[in-house]
Amino acid sequence: MKRVEALKQLAFEKEGLDGFLIGNEANLLYFIGSPGASCVLIPKTGESIIYVYGVNYEQVKAKTKGFKVELVKRGENLATKIAEKVEASRIKQLGLDTIAGVPHVADYLKLGRVLRGIAKIKVENEPVRALRKVKDEEELELMQKAGELTSEGMKVAYEVIKPGVREYEVAAEIEYAMRKKGSWGTAFKTIVVSGVRSAFPHGGCTHRKIKKGDLVVVDIGATYQFYCSDMTRTITAGKPLTKQMKIYEIVKMAQEKAFQNVKSKAKAKNIDATARKVIDDAGYGEYFVHGLGHGVGLEVHESPTLNRESKDRLTVGNVVTIEPGIYIVGFGGIRIEDTVSVGKNKAERFTKGPYTLEIGR
Amino acid sequence: MKRVEALKQLAFEKEGLDGFLIGNEANLLYFIGSPGASCVLIPKTGESIIYVYGVNYEQVKAKTKGFKVELVKRGENLATKIAEKVEASRIKQLGLDTIAGVPHVADYLKLGRVLRGIAKIKVENEPVRALRKVKDEEELELMQKAGELTSEGMKVAYEVIKPGVREYEVAAEIEYAMRKKGSWGTAFKTIVVSGVRSAFPHGGCTHRKIKKGDLVVVDIGATYQFYCSDMTRTITAGKPLTKQMKIYEIVKMAQEKAFQNVKSKAKAKNIDATARKVIDDAGYGEYFVHGLGHGVGLEVHESPTLNRESKDRLTVGNVVTIEPGIYIVGFGGIRIEDTVSVGKNKAERFTKGPYTLEIGR
Repeated sequence: MKRVEALKQLAFEKEGLDGFLIGNEANLLYFIGSPGASCVLIPKTGESIIYVYGVNYEQVKAKTKGFKVELVKRGENLATKIAEKVEASRIKQLGLDTIAGVPHVADYLKLGRVLRGIAKIKVENEPVRALRKVKDEEELELMQKAGELTSEGMKVAYEVIKPGVREYEVAAEIEYAMRKKGSWGTAFKTIVVSGVRSAFPHGGCTHRKIKKGDLVVVDIGATYQFYCSDMTRTITAGKPLTKQMKIYEIVKMAQEKAFQNVKSKAKAKNIDATARKVIDDAGYGEYFVHGLGHGVGLEVHESPTLNRESKDRLTVGNVVTIEPGIYIVGFGGIRIEDTVSVGKNKAERFTKGPYTLEIGR
Repeated sequence: MKRVEALKQLAFEKEGLDGFLIGNEANLLYFIGSPGASCVLIPKTGESIIYVYGVNYEQVKAKTKGFKVELVKRGENLATKIAEKVEASRIKQLGLDTIAGVPHVADYLKLGRVLRGIAKIKVENEPVRALRKVKDEEELELMQKAGELTSEGMKVAYEVIKPGVREYEVAAEIEYAMRKKGSWGTAFKTIVVSGVRSAFPHGGCTHRKIKKGDLVVVDIGATYQFYCSDMTRTITAGKPLTKQMKIYEIVKMAQEKAFQNVKSKAKAKNIDATARKVIDDAGYGEYFVHGLGHGVGLEVHESPTLNRESKDRLTVGNVVTIEPGIYIVGFGGIRIEDTVSVGKNKAERFTKGPYTLEIGR
């Protein structure tokens, strides 16, 4: 309930709202602590109500505390139910979150129709975003654990990558190792891209057999109690070529320099600039085709954002990725990424692993 | 491009639209064949344009055919870019898909602002839904393969479940087996719920140790080339109790009877009713807390829907789940689920595995 109270302060006192409807899955997890709910209505006064369909009713009731849990019965219309409660609670300015995913446009339109004359909907992502991007102690512990599990997975990548192994087989071994150590799942679809495919930052993983001399970009994330982690290493199958080593050192230096600059009050765009300058100076600027990083938490991509356009300023409790990369079509790609937490004067790596292109064997 | 042409026919000739914007991830996969794009604009005349950010530009360009692939450059506003093209193409009635996920309310509102005076946006899910729910030969082959991989995973569940093993360890072995056989990943977060937790249909999987006599509901899905599968079995750790066996037989009969009724032209709600009657007649109706099933394809939940409210009528090429369940708080839950394809006169199971509560050892 501490988080609900914090939202009330942000959204009601500062934004002039008198009710808030949370429908996004990750936001729901954040505020109520359980998956399975459809939404939660938080009025300025009176108790907050979780709406849940029958299939998840018992689970949500068992896993949440401090909320009224209301069953949406068969044949009942959720939007109408919400509208009735909004009217009864005299909510006039209803905030609505829409960060990534739910509610959808169709739900939004429906809600708008049933609330006509009752309350005004204000799509307002900022208060929830502001809360979620500053992790508390409990969250940091879970994310550290997720980072450890991810690092265990990466160890396995260094063990199994060799010519003749298929990309999905590498993924199999990594995911298995993370799971066996206690991971709750993967934070995103495991990426194992080899050879020319390594130039695709989001290339997934396929049946392609890794060949001798291939660059292999491995981008993985374990989850622990709903919290995500994100880590990338680039490995060659066999002895690296001179050009591969040269580019690797540039990316490594960009990552390390950016990491050294991560601390409270730093501007996110300046951290991006630090890494970008290393790559620009080496003449590969045009091949660094994405931002430096992103926040991580209940979602693998959340606030703050570290890129050239970012307006974010880092604060203690942020957890972000630092992931510079160079991608050259026909040659391949190299990316190095860690998930790090932001402290007062420096950052701490939650993912740990070797910074070597060649496998030590 | 065959699918784009089919959409044009459905959306333009029948619905009076003269342009369509696809922004949903699964829909994009369906129409363009590659992940990574932001959206695709399909005008009534002239070529269709895929919009993609730099990070995925090379991949989308390499993986798609028949589209213009347009890079959204740094500093460019995607909504404005789309609006300019909509205006240039003289689109006046722009259809917009919003099935599950993208685009979000904030994107929708932004698009509405930039298109003011240029074109009217019509949120229109039906044409895409109608196309996607009828799988073609190629899709059916991929889904059959996904079903085989899932069945391989379930075999392992029967091998590893025993007292003392933790839920996540069972998940580890299942996912590993599916991956090793060639799965591209999981269609959803693996569910292994044991003991009293088995009464939660969507209970995920935790560190809980399975105890002797526990019911263990295992709900898993492999993916193959982006296509999903979905399968559930319920297994006891050790000899089942009489009440467990009794309820198991009811669920099994409900599943089998429903399966026998799956064929082209059948009303989805009647298939649900077939299963529900078996469970109702046995006196457990109130514990069957969800619909009988759902369509499966590029997403694990899509059209058609099999529940009491469904207006869908099955057709050849639908792929759906049949998954009755009984969940009793304090006792546990039992669900049996297969993914099946709808044929002219009968259905075919894509997932195959034993219908036994007890492990044969």
